[in-house]
Amino acid sequence: MAGNSFGEIFRITTFGESHGPAIGVIVDGCPAGIEVDFEYIQRQLDRRRPGQSDLVTPRQEKDTVHIYSGLFDGKTTGTPIGMVIFNSDMRSKDYDNLKDLFRPGHADYTYFKKYGIRDYRGSGRASARETACRVAAGAIARKLLEDNGISIIGYLISIGTIKAEKRNLNEIGKNKVGCPDERAAQHMERLITQLKEEGDSTGGIVEVIAQGVPPGLGDPVYDKLSADLAKAMVSINAVKGVEIGDGFACTELRGSINNDVMSPDGFLTNHAGGILGGISTGNDIIVRVAIKPASSIKKTQHTITKEGVPIEFSVEGRHDPCVAIRAVPVVEAMMALTLADHLLRSKLSRVDY
Amino acid sequence: MAGNSFGEIFRITTFGESHGPAIGVIVDGCPAGIEVDFEYIQRQLDRRRPGQSDLVTPRQEKDTVHIYSGLFDGKTTGTPIGMVIFNSDMRSKDYDNLKDLFRPGHADYTYFKKYGIRDYRGSGRASARETACRVAAGAIARKLLEDNGISIIGYLISIGTIKAEKRNLNEIGKNKVGCPDERAAQHMERLITQLKEEGDSTGGIVEVIAQGVPPGLGDPVYDKLSADLAKAMVSINAVKGVEIGDGFACTELRGSINNDVMSPDGFLTNHAGGILGGISTGNDIIVRVAIKPASSIKKTQHTITKEGVPIEFSVEGRHDPCVAIRAVPVVEAMMALTLADHLLRSKLSRVDY
Amino acid sequence: MAGNSFGEIFRITTFGESHGPAIGVIVDGCPAGIEVDFEYIQRQLDRRRPGQSDLVTPRQEKDTVHIYSGLFDGKTTGTPIGMVIFNSDMRSKDYDNLKDLFRPGHADYTYFKKYGIRDYRGSGRASARETACRVAAGAIARKLLEDNGISIIGYLISIGTIKAEKRNLNEIGKNKVGCPDERAAQHMERLITQLKEEGDSTGGIVEVIAQGVPPGLGDPVYDKLSADLAKAMVSINAVKGVEIGDGFACTELRGSINNDVMSPDGFLTNHAGGILGGISTGNDIIVRVAIKPASSIKKTQHTITKEGVPIEFSVEGRHDPCVAIRAVPVVEAMMALTLADHLLRSKLSRVDY
Amino acid sequence: MAGNSFGEIFRITTFGESHGPAIGVIVDGCPAGIEVDFEYIQRQLDRRRPGQSDLVTPRQEKDTVHIYSGLFDGKTTGTPIGMVIFNSDMRSKDYDNLKDLFRPGHADYTYFKKYGIRDYRGSGRASARETACRVAAGAIARKLLEDNGISIIGYLISIGTIKAEKRNLNEIGKNKVGCPDERAAQHMERLITQLKEEGDSTGGIVEVIAQGVPPGLGDPVYDKLSADLAKAMVSINAVKGVEIGDGFACTELRGSINNDVMSPDGFLTNHAGGILGGISTGNDIIVRVAIKPASSIKKTQHTITKEGVPIEFSVEGRHDPCVAIRAVPVVEAMMALTLADHLLRSKLSRVDY
Repeated sequence: MAGNSFGEIFRITTFGESHGPAIGVIVDGCPAGIEVDFEYIQRQLDRRRPGQSDLVTPRQEKDTVHIYSGLFDGKTTGTPIGMVIFNSDMRSKDYDNLKDLFRPGHADYTYFKKYGIRDYRGSGRASARETACRVAAGAIARKLLEDNGISIIGYLISIGTIKAEKRNLNEIGKNKVGCPDERAAQHMERLITQLKEEGDSTGGIVEVIAQGVPPGLGDPVYDKLSADLAKAMVSINAVKGVEIGDGFACTELRGSINNDVMSPDGFLTNHAGGILGGISTGNDIIVRVAIKPASSIKKTQHTITKEGVPIEFSVEGRHDPCVAIRAVPVVEAMMALTLADHLLRSKLSRVDY
Repeated sequence: MAGNSFGEIFRITTFGESHGPAIGVIVDGCPAGIEVDFEYIQRQLDRRRPGQSDLVTPRQEKDTVHIYSGLFDGKTTGTPIGMVIFNSDMRSKDYDNLKDLFRPGHADYTYFKKYGIRDYRGSGRASARETACRVAAGAIARKLLEDNGISIIGYLISIGTIKAEKRNLNEIGKNKVGCPDERAAQHMERLITQLKEEGDSTGGIVEVIAQGVPPGLGDPVYDKLSADLAKAMVSINAVKGVEIGDGFACTELRGSINNDVMSPDGFLTNHAGGILGGISTGNDIIVRVAIKPASSIKKTQHTITKEGVPIEFSVEGRHDPCVAIRAVPVVEAMMALTLADHLLRSKLSRVDY
Repeated sequence: MAGNSFGEIFRITTFGESHGPAIGVIVDGCPAGIEVDFEYIQRQLDRRRPGQSDLVTPRQEKDTVHIYSGLFDGKTTGTPIGMVIFNSDMRSKDYDNLKDLFRPGHADYTYFKKYGIRDYRGSGRASARETACRVAAGAIARKLLEDNGISIIGYLISIGTIKAEKRNLNEIGKNKVGCPDERAAQHMERLITQLKEEGDSTGGIVEVIAQGVPPGLGDPVYDKLSADLAKAMVSINAVKGVEIGDGFACTELRGSINNDVMSPDGFLTNHAGGILGGISTGNDIIVRVAIKPASSIKKTQHTITKEGVPIEFSVEGRHDPCVAIRAVPVVEAMMALTLADHLLRSKLSRVDY
Repeated sequence: MAGNSFGEIFRITTFGESHGPAIGVIVDGCPAGIEVDFEYIQRQLDRRRPGQSDLVTPRQEKDTVHIYSGLFDGKTTGTPIGMVIFNSDMRSKDYDNLKDLFRPGHADYTYFKKYGIRDYRGSGRASARETACRVAAGAIARKLLEDNGISIIGYLISIGTIKAEKRNLNEIGKNKVGCPDERAAQHMERLITQLKEEGDSTGGIVEVIAQGVPPGLGDPVYDKLSADLAKAMVSINAVKGVEIGDGFACTELRGSINNDVMSPDGFLTNHAGGILGGISTGNDIIVRVAIKPASSIKKTQHTITKEGVPIEFSVEGRHDPCVAIRAVPVVEAMMALTLADHLLRSKLSRVDY
């Protein structure tokens, strides 16, 4: 069934595999009149692109976005925005030795069981290549939010067992892992280097904050803002968990502590991560996303072939020791898409709006 | 905007507030021919009902379900199943002192900001009363799954800082908290008693497992099985986090460990929690859900009135020190609803199905 | 698959069969703050109810609506509005002789082929009884529209070969068939009487006009206002055709005639029926709906049993010689539901709204 | 709001304006395993293309479809199919004199009122150019249907006041207007020639038949097959009416005539056009579509400018005297898309499927 769309009002639909000629996205339901230009979108895409530091894969994906519709004189027209990114640098031969086996931790097996087809060229539709479309579409959502005073920032708070102790947002751009804790960042960088040598990988946690979100976003009871953010985040490749505000940690607190006290000046704390009853409170929206260790590693692994025969193999090619680093702009994009959708939805909740 | 439906094919829509005359649910898209009777649905509802032990609220909600359509001769007909549960024992006067203030940790403030209306009778639509509809509808989903060899079991693995160390599923029914670890259960029961005395509350973590799920469920890239489960769980009242398989813990592992090795006899481990690339693997689906401390506590709290004036108050009435206990059948119901929807969806993925 | 919902933002979902205990509807996505009361809804329902004149079926359906949620202090709260209408006067025994055969022109055969079930008690879900839910929900939509200066009026313009030549809207309430042409109405009444005597039926055409609709409603290219109105109307029982503005007749015109000329004072004509490019022009929306002769007739008919054996039969019970008469409030309701949905949708088309 | 998608399971989303660089479509929810190739799709597109006879516009649109995803080894993979058609021969200068006025009968005015933007380059999103995407996507739906024994054929049954009296399907390909009545076709051709000389246009009626449709397609009560077909057809540019089976004519019949009698050998007549109670009967599905006279004519017309000043003008450029001729493949495509969606949906109506 059709599962390649996200959002109800501000709605994106994507297509494309990692080793086909192109990927693309249609943004439908974007209101007319948003000023948005090619450079703005391209800049967001460039943040996601591989090959930007020695810590991530050196694949060169140019990721130039082509905007085919929906903009006129630098503004959105209200009609669907069609964007295409052509694939290049697709070394399909890197995948020749994987043609007939199921890579553990990958979607090879499950796609084969679901669709009855083994498209062995890379990861096909399951590749993180698809997330470029999320970032391109997310850029437009982001512009809509910015025009409404809402900003989004994401960063890495852990790689493996190394955790950021600080949230120094000025630090994020200064290190190669995008971590808001200078010391932790140094340890993280060393770990990545070590993992590259070992031919192994590890996971990480991305935190993302939205500031300036007005109260009232979210549609109970099933389309709670928290529920839609959870779906948004877990729909990203390699994500295995999500939490809002204090998340799992709040289960250990007493209610008398966890309840965010309201004062005439607003909430005194934000354990809730900006969402109560599925609706935004006006406080910062805080979400954390758990990203598993990349499945593609150089280390020799055991698996089976399509015919069920055991086999040893090693993934050649150029892969990331920690995909969480490059996930940050994708997490931001999904936050932007979810908020843009709910910002629009919120205009319909009262007749006096 | 309409946010009170869940599911695409097997789709539920609910209505009703805690202090109105009735709540109800329409199950649409349920295939014809499922044998399901009143007793089966009522049994699931009875599991959720308050007043079953001295650890949970002594409110007496009879929760008798009335089935008005969609069944004939003990089988579903393919037409929508309408079910209504009348409210009783609604002591609205318990809420008189809350009429003009915003209870911290509650949805009072956010509903007021969103809809411009302060319905002070209990929590209205934000009340967990609505989850009775999920359980009633979930019972039908569960029957469809059972007929396909799929079973679901949920249990409590932590309350506050007390964690279950074991997963002895036989133990679950034997203690008042539904925990699969006898020793932990004893500590949990003591903690609940203590919290009642203190007039405070704490959170907990529910784990739910689905067994017998065939490979191939889930519709990448946005309607991944994991993404839809995340939305399902976070849509439940008081939920602040969700994880699949090893979840947040897997971020600390190496890829060489976290990758579940495939052998001719199947996967050797299940770090992935039964989902790869958003599609079920055939292994057990494992999900954990973080539930915050109940907001309603007897302890005196500070807050503000609708007019913004600081005020002290205490929630009278009969409330749960740990709502996670009663959340278990709701978590199971949301798992059942999500799987039933995707089981049906999966029939459309190949022309040879 | 779930097919019992209509609308995207202002969305209704219905349940119930003609011979079960109750039917009902959930209105989801209705904005908070609309003043609407029981009497207003009941009045619309009373217009649809059978037994109001000697020209329609004398069945006595009381059709008292019970509103279980979504209203507080006489206003909508933004949460789902649940309404239930209990069935009464269900003479199932009238259907005993139909138990094992397929009535021609009815949905007996197609429901049986689709769902594998023969619910022989009346027409079950296919009964026009379901339209009471449309009218109840439509009353709320209508109130929202009225508050925005939009009014809707429907009437009968033909029964069999008798056509209204005039559109004297004051005449509608004065005759038993609801026709805006006094002379035609007299002929229609005579025809109905004659058909009752013959035990036969005939069809009719309902015209519905919406006045005060602002320009800008409709979402090209698939959710054109005209397309959604077409779906709305053809989803009504017994409808076999729909047209907008001049409709089929405009195919015979020259473009130079059919193009509605614009002047500084607005459009000089309205061949388009108030919709251009799928978007409302600000002119009256004009729709006509073709309703087939009722399938249930006293006259002896030929058909086959479930086992395929030819059989003669006659439909006993109390049926309408022309269901188009009672269809008018249903057609109005579907117009109201479609316009309310698109009125809300239109608020999202521009950032400067 | 997002309105550029059609279908629930088999779902298309389109983008693109007539005078931008490209248009395109994503087909999502297409099952894996359908054999479909570029030539098959291109052939359908070539049928729609202008410039094929002297009766239609001589614009040369090459309409070469580029398939970017969703196919592997000649079969659909179950992942979204992305297709792009680049625009060429876009003589924007033809539109220079229309820049500041509203063409009567066009969507200029309504798009401007809705979106606040006047994209004067041709008709932008409202152009029939978009229908190329419907035809490309429809080709894939058509292949799915053919593999299930379902075929679709459309043809012109009237232009202006000239009506086809016969349904000689062999005749359709033999005349320039695609009419199944040789004599009528000759009159139609003459009328078109005359209209070209006059610089005027006229409307027409397209009839489309689907054969081999199994009983059981359609999801009451709102997603009736007839209702979804009505929406599909009225979503096409210039369509002002639709009818199923006898349609408006059946309103003049008696029930005793209009009821299609069932015999052991099936239905003896097909007044219902293959749909009863919103569900297919197994008989031919018959739909007729009313297409208004093209709005773009050479004849001098009166209108107003954006500023409301009266003005005379004439549409230069290359336009069709009767757009109904070229609408046939589009009508067929919408029939194919609707049936493919409902064919898939029908697999979910019973547990024994």
